[in-house]
Amino acid sequence: MVRLVVLRLGHRPERDKRVTTHVGLVARAFGASGIVLGDVKDEKVVEKLRKTCEMWGRRDFLVLDGVNSIEYVRKWKELGGVVVHLTMYGLHIDDVIDEIRSLNRDILIIVGATKVPRVYYELADYNVAVGHQPHSEVAALAVFLDRFYEGKELRFIYSDAKIIVEPCTRGKRVVIRE
Amino acid sequence: MVRLVVLRLGHRPERDKRVTTHVGLVARAFGASGIVLGDVKDEKVVEKLRKTCEMWGRRDFLVLDGVNSIEYVRKWKELGGVVVHLTMYGLHIDDVIDEIRSLNRDILIIVGATKVPRVYYELADYNVAVGHQPHSEVAALAVFLDRFYEGKELRFIYSDAKIIVEPCTRGKRVVIRE
Repeated sequence: MVRLVVLRLGHRPERDKRVTTHVGLVARAFGASGIVLGDVKDEKVVEKLRKTCEMWGRRDFLVLDGVNSIEYVRKWKELGGVVVHLTMYGLHIDDVIDEIRSLNRDILIIVGATKVPRVYYELADYNVAVGHQPHSEVAALAVFLDRFYEGKELRFIYSDAKIIVEPCTRGKRVVIRE
Repeated sequence: MVRLVVLRLGHRPERDKRVTTHVGLVARAFGASGIVLGDVKDEKVVEKLRKTCEMWGRRDFLVLDGVNSIEYVRKWKELGGVVVHLTMYGLHIDDVIDEIRSLNRDILIIVGATKVPRVYYELADYNVAVGHQPHSEVAALAVFLDRFYEGKELRFIYSDAKIIVEPCTRGKRVVIRE
């Protein structure tokens, strides 16, 4: 099975704490294998994501911080993986997603918090635009993964979850497993 | 043409500034008609969204803050609109989106920042889950709109844009119009 890992660039602990947490939660919920915070440590974000996996399943979800981004990208490519950089300036997702999926290779998905240095546009095998409007890396990642998994990810059930939601028309219904 | 407006509940200015801005940018970029901040003023968020519309188009995009949420929802329903509340506890989006689209009525989409009071679950015509995992209201809104517009929203072009992106494989290419 192909692995998709998210590399979050340019995270600033105080300022981006919440948005980066959302990026991590989306990576987990939409079927990616992990998230890596480039070049910075942030124990709060890491802890929040680990706790979510503990409760809702996917204890094997990779959460790493303080990783050297450039080295990580270069290593990923050396090992035969594909690098996708999400940017509104890239090629339209619907024009490349089938090709990317058909490669059947592990994918590193780069999302930036601040302006992404030019070198990542160069290193990426695909610069992919989830639309050509400014919006959100959280949304871009969600839609990329949703397209990649063709919507099936929203039905994924994780065998190690302690809580499982039972869909209902009003209110909240959950099953607790110990 | 059916109008979709987003109602953001529970926004806390310092804490949620960035995430709420992302919610607003997604609303704009994915084809909604506007965003309303319930029960709180936040000039920074409003200004950021207005500037984006000024530059990238959609000067008719509605941005309102300090609106009484409960009254807004009640009024929306009185006027014949549908209310959709995005929550991981609701019905799976793929089980209801065709029905919601086929109603052909204006839609108010409620997204919460904090725990959403029970009354909104009751007032909503549809409690809709973009998957049953915890993730992000930014992602949930994006995927909801993407499903609603069947992916066409990512090709929308706005006639009043001052900048338009030209897709490219590397780097950035834009057309400036004055």
